Amino acid sequence: MATTPIDPVWQRIHRETQQVAQQEPLLASFLHATILNHNDLESALSFHLANKLDSPTVSSMLLREIITQAFASCTNIGKSIRDDLLAIEERDSACNRLDTPFLYYKGFHALQIHRVAHCLWGSGREALALFFQNKMSEEFAVDIHPAAQLGSGIMLDHATGLVIGATAVVGNNVSILQSVTLGGTGKEEGDRHPKVGNGVLISAGAKILGNIRIGDGAKVGAGSVVLEDVPPHTTVAGVPAKVVGTPASDQPALEMDHAFSCD
Amino acid sequence: MATTPIDPVWQRIHRETQQVAQQEPLLASFLHATILNHNDLESALSFHLANKLDSPTVSSMLLREIITQAFASCTNIGKSIRDDLLAIEERDSACNRLDTPFLYYKGFHALQIHRVAHCLWGSGREALALFFQNKMSEEFAVDIHPAAQLGSGIMLDHATGLVIGATAVVGNNVSILQSVTLGGTGKEEGDRHPKVGNGVLISAGAKILGNIRIGDGAKVGAGSVVLEDVPPHTTVAGVPAKVVGTPASDQPALEMDHAFSCD
Amino acid sequence: MATTPIDPVWQRIHRETQQVAQQEPLLASFLHATILNHNDLESALSFHLANKLDSPTVSSMLLREIITQAFASCTNIGKSIRDDLLAIEERDSACNRLDTPFLYYKGFHALQIHRVAHCLWGSGREALALFFQNKMSEEFAVDIHPAAQLGSGIMLDHATGLVIGATAVVGNNVSILQSVTLGGTGKEEGDRHPKVGNGVLISAGAKILGNIRIGDGAKVGAGSVVLEDVPPHTTVAGVPAKVVGTPASDQPALEMDHAFSCD
Amino acid sequence: MATTPIDPVWQRIHRETQQVAQQEPLLASFLHATILNHNDLESALSFHLANKLDSPTVSSMLLREIITQAFASCTNIGKSIRDDLLAIEERDSACNRLDTPFLYYKGFHALQIHRVAHCLWGSGREALALFFQNKMSEEFAVDIHPAAQLGSGIMLDHATGLVIGATAVVGNNVSILQSVTLGGTGKEEGDRHPKVGNGVLISAGAKILGNIRIGDGAKVGAGSVVLEDVPPHTTVAGVPAKVVGTPASDQPALEMDHAFSCD
Amino acid sequence: MATTPIDPVWQRIHRETQQVAQQEPLLASFLHATILNHNDLESALSFHLANKLDSPTVSSMLLREIITQAFASCTNIGKSIRDDLLAIEERDSACNRLDTPFLYYKGFHALQIHRVAHCLWGSGREALALFFQNKMSEEFAVDIHPAAQLGSGIMLDHATGLVIGATAVVGNNVSILQSVTLGGTGKEEGDRHPKVGNGVLISAGAKILGNIRIGDGAKVGAGSVVLEDVPPHTTVAGVPAKVVGTPASDQPALEMDHAFSCD
Amino acid sequence: MATTPIDPVWQRIHRETQQVAQQEPLLASFLHATILNHNDLESALSFHLANKLDSPTVSSMLLREIITQAFASCTNIGKSIRDDLLAIEERDSACNRLDTPFLYYKGFHALQIHRVAHCLWGSGREALALFFQNKMSEEFAVDIHPAAQLGSGIMLDHATGLVIGATAVVGNNVSILQSVTLGGTGKEEGDRHPKVGNGVLISAGAKILGNIRIGDGAKVGAGSVVLEDVPPHTTVAGVPAKVVGTPASDQPALEMDHAFSCD
Repeated sequence: MATTPIDPVWQRIHRETQQVAQQEPLLASFLHATILNHNDLESALSFHLANKLDSPTVSSMLLREIITQAFASCTNIGKSIRDDLLAIEERDSACNRLDTPFLYYKGFHALQIHRVAHCLWGSGREALALFFQNKMSEEFAVDIHPAAQLGSGIMLDHATGLVIGATAVVGNNVSILQSVTLGGTGKEEGDRHPKVGNGVLISAGAKILGNIRIGDGAKVGAGSVVLEDVPPHTTVAGVPAKVVGTPASDQPALEMDHAFSCD
Repeated sequence: MATTPIDPVWQRIHRETQQVAQQEPLLASFLHATILNHNDLESALSFHLANKLDSPTVSSMLLREIITQAFASCTNIGKSIRDDLLAIEERDSACNRLDTPFLYYKGFHALQIHRVAHCLWGSGREALALFFQNKMSEEFAVDIHPAAQLGSGIMLDHATGLVIGATAVVGNNVSILQSVTLGGTGKEEGDRHPKVGNGVLISAGAKILGNIRIGDGAKVGAGSVVLEDVPPHTTVAGVPAKVVGTPASDQPALEMDHAFSCD
Repeated sequence: MATTPIDPVWQRIHRETQQVAQQEPLLASFLHATILNHNDLESALSFHLANKLDSPTVSSMLLREIITQAFASCTNIGKSIRDDLLAIEERDSACNRLDTPFLYYKGFHALQIHRVAHCLWGSGREALALFFQNKMSEEFAVDIHPAAQLGSGIMLDHATGLVIGATAVVGNNVSILQSVTLGGTGKEEGDRHPKVGNGVLISAGAKILGNIRIGDGAKVGAGSVVLEDVPPHTTVAGVPAKVVGTPASDQPALEMDHAFSCD
Repeated sequence: MATTPIDPVWQRIHRETQQVAQQEPLLASFLHATILNHNDLESALSFHLANKLDSPTVSSMLLREIITQAFASCTNIGKSIRDDLLAIEERDSACNRLDTPFLYYKGFHALQIHRVAHCLWGSGREALALFFQNKMSEEFAVDIHPAAQLGSGIMLDHATGLVIGATAVVGNNVSILQSVTLGGTGKEEGDRHPKVGNGVLISAGAKILGNIRIGDGAKVGAGSVVLEDVPPHTTVAGVPAKVVGTPASDQPALEMDHAFSCD
Repeated sequence: MATTPIDPVWQRIHRETQQVAQQEPLLASFLHATILNHNDLESALSFHLANKLDSPTVSSMLLREIITQAFASCTNIGKSIRDDLLAIEERDSACNRLDTPFLYYKGFHALQIHRVAHCLWGSGREALALFFQNKMSEEFAVDIHPAAQLGSGIMLDHATGLVIGATAVVGNNVSILQSVTLGGTGKEEGDRHPKVGNGVLISAGAKILGNIRIGDGAKVGAGSVVLEDVPPHTTVAGVPAKVVGTPASDQPALEMDHAFSCD
Repeated sequence: MATTPIDPVWQRIHRETQQVAQQEPLLASFLHATILNHNDLESALSFHLANKLDSPTVSSMLLREIITQAFASCTNIGKSIRDDLLAIEERDSACNRLDTPFLYYKGFHALQIHRVAHCLWGSGREALALFFQNKMSEEFAVDIHPAAQLGSGIMLDHATGLVIGATAVVGNNVSILQSVTLGGTGKEEGDRHPKVGNGVLISAGAKILGNIRIGDGAKVGAGSVVLEDVPPHTTVAGVPAKVVGTPASDQPALEMDHAFSCD
């Protein structure tokens, strides 16, 4: 758990933040309240997220209590948070720090709100989970159904407009860009959303629709509309999407190379 | 009007909310303030929307007065609100309640703000209408020009990134997904936006541009770019969109089947 | 600078606002606080933007100080603000005023926040610049990296979902619509984002990826995915984009004609 | 009622405010929101008071609804509000306007909150009445029990520290200064607080304790402690208070002459 | 501690509140957030006080953390809170409930903030203690130095204007009314404020100055200025105060009989 | 002025605050925002006061602008602020720092708001001055008419309930305690309030009424009611006040010895 003595991710965030607070005094107040005042990552993150979701009708104090309880009862969240942060640092060419995504990336914030909502959903508190989904959609323009299952090491880059449906499953080490939809087909209940394997890269604006399988290490080109299964380690693109090649890397999510060529 | 003794939609919302308030005490405060304290749907909705649009420069009290006046002077809004709620329950496979969209779906909230703005626009209060359009765009990432004419029974699903231009017309029982544009072509004033028939389904990310006609019961595939008229009961897809088939249902908006096949 | 005696843009905004404040008393309070109380455009804009970015952890007072300092130290911002306003009035068929975009268009607001962030970035205050980028993304759903270089006379129409990467360069008199991405390819640092010439029109949902060149006067069709250089005065469209014609005008950004035909 | 066509008090407030809004543009926004946007005195006052009592847990919108209902159901409040305003203008040497006390005098604000709480108390809504008493005490440092009966034409000058108990009765045209207590003696329930006649002046810091009678036209000197009945048209002073003279005027409340002499 | 299974004070508050929430739905939202959502008295009180002290520069979330830690580390606070509530119910003739003072009495709120500040002061966190003193003074118009030692079963009735200095000591079961000062004499540091025994009643506006002793069961008349020791079970009154009699009860604080007679 | 290179008062506040921010990290955020982020005393104080007076209808940003302008145009305010701070440190036995009164003493805050209001009043902006008086009264329970003339080196200790009328004049190096009134007699306009000399000490609860003169170095006992001139270097006490002795010091305000004896 996060309160164990040695947490290298939290130590780095804290250290990076201390430097920024000294170099940029105008942010010192914000950085103290959000990070430096806290003893561990979970405390800082629950404070930060609760502040972002604060509203006249549900206070940040109450929101924070719920987040803290979710962190405590769904113990895998702690590891996922850290994997997600390290994933961003590894893959985002504009970011080689941990404090920046922690403080600023709304894809990261939305993802952690989802982890809280998913935890609530799993323990039968569906009303509360839907409340968090709604706040996520309003504040971050990211709409992930609380029932959706997401792995760890996920990067939701830029994130605006992302939609992920209730029966979607996303593996580990996946990168998803803005305006992507993992959507359903039809109004019937049941298993109706995509299953995305490990290491997959889904580029900006891609729409993946229906209970189809995107194999491990696949790459979905920007603006594609995917209506059929995609084999592992395959690049698809177009409207509707067709196979156009093979990703240069085993885990295209880690390389973030959005290019593809079509003949 | 909503204050008549029997309003089954409001009765259901109230009853569903009472159950949730008992099962989930952490939300009881929010649910009382937003729904249980009110005597009719219009009172609750004006309170809820005003809270969402509150800002330091224009208070929620003033916003609520304007919304209440619009509900009173444009009497068709009441029926549309109820049709919109029933449409979501009917079509959204993740939702078989009325309280959930009322409380949480930003597509529903944006649509009702549009109905208010459209009412203001129609009575010559253009400045106020533009103010509401702006708040809608900022809070919900939905940008519908106040002059646009929308029917009833509309579902704006997920809604982020939706843009609808000033001379667009949308029929009844239409379903529109996230990132859709009903846009113009050219900087000239005049009738320059799409006309969408009844029962149409417009899938995620579709861009429909110009004063073209989308016939009743048509389906526009995800990610399509539509630049020409679409005949009734036809499925189009692609960039630019071409006819690819016929919807399985008379009103594809009700079925929400986003699949299409292209040869 | 804005405080010189004659500023026709500010004079028009002020005069238009006075009329609205008289015709629509419900907005008078908001209009006084935002525009009529101020002596020049920069004072009003810094007030307006600071209000929009206000949060419990960083107060509007502090934000306004930073914005005011940026306006003072990066003296070209003043001209760009005015060019941007005039560009919207010229090109947006739904708007022939200056007060409306000043008050309400979130594309305009996001762009000016970017100009502030870019100024901070250029003077070595990267942490502060990233803070502003994050606020822009959260409040306006527009994500422009502070290092990106944008010209003047820019219209970001509707704006939701726009993403512009760190090494992107955008010329003067460009029009960009909602859900557009000027993105990178790959996780390596270095020059990796598009270079967009003058007068270019980029339609809704287009994704332009990699260090490629979009020539002066080019037009990128809605929903296109552009992976290669586009010659000047050329229209491209499709996924992936191909040349489909020649814009009717020298500067398609000014005409806003999104139509294209593909054979 | 206030909505009748001719309300000279409201007309004066509105006219005075219009002049101030023009002379002092920095206040124009506040004055529009608080007065100029409204059609009658009750609308403006309910807006103003609700804003002052706003809190994270009970919104100004809800507070205003309650105030508006009280104004409507206890119809004598309207006359009392106007008498109170005219009384201040008549008696306060630093004020010959109506807009100033309406906008700024917390004694006036506390008194009108009491009138609302008293109305609620009288209709059996004791919990709500106590809520308003508490807000009054917190915001204005004035603590009047909702059951206390106050006449009209009351001036609560400066007002900080005023306490009036549950069974106190105060006549018409009374002036009460800061730090005054109309208190009880003993913990038993029952009629235990002072009865103050018409036209009485109670100077700063006076404590009047127990179910005693302060006759019409009496004057209570500053800092006095009154434990026994005071005959009409008599001046008392001292700790404990003794008769020291006769007021120069029939209604010392109107003259506001706090001087007294003791031999 | 408060989390033990049986806490009759909390059970009564909770039960009384449930009844009010049903009878007065307009308060249900407030009552849920403040009391019904919580599992024990300390959780509810820390939430309630943090809300009252919330400000743009120090968030309610942070305030609540500090209050919660003080409740946990200074374990006698729990008993004092309950004694204080029971004291009010016993002595205040206008109140025979526990929920009313818990929710509304600012004397009770100020006293509990003092208990927190005193706990912080005792553990060497003087800066934080002074911060709380300031918030207390601003929000409740009650100014108690964090070093002052107050017993339990204290009623601060009405409370506006109360001042208690750093070296003051107040026993158990004491009642103090509004505008009372327990002040020092002189600018020298050292023991310079009053020592008040058990069961003492200090009436409204009394000023007790210097390191003097007010004996057990004494009564200080309203408006008195006390500059010398007061023997136990003695009534003093006047400016300066002199002995005027003997209280009818052993603990005048419990009887709240403010009457006294002077010959 | 404060922006000159050497300002020992500001240097001390800054240095003291830095120490506190390190010792008490929970306050670091507040201290950075309020003091450490600023370059001079006036910048910090205008920020701090504007935050305290913030309200939904008049934003802290606007308030700060007005305060800053007053500091700039009434250049004597800068010296008075510093004298007031040094006076508190010199006289208040519970305070030997400058940061504590700057941050926390509402008497100090109210006094500086008065200096701003007095400056506005003197330049003909009476409406704005009254607005500030009202905010002062509401937030700090201190009511000083903007026309009142106060010297420098003033300590308003504890401050709750203080009232000072329009034609009052207060000299330099005066100490005034809580619940004091410098009031008028009668409703006529004209010079009607007390004139207080230099070095005077006015103890808690004293009421000084009418256009009378309190000579240099006089002392007014707690709870006194003063209706006649007080000679210099004289102690008065009682209701009504009589001469009871001679202060031990030339300037009793500096010694803060509230004791007096009456025979």
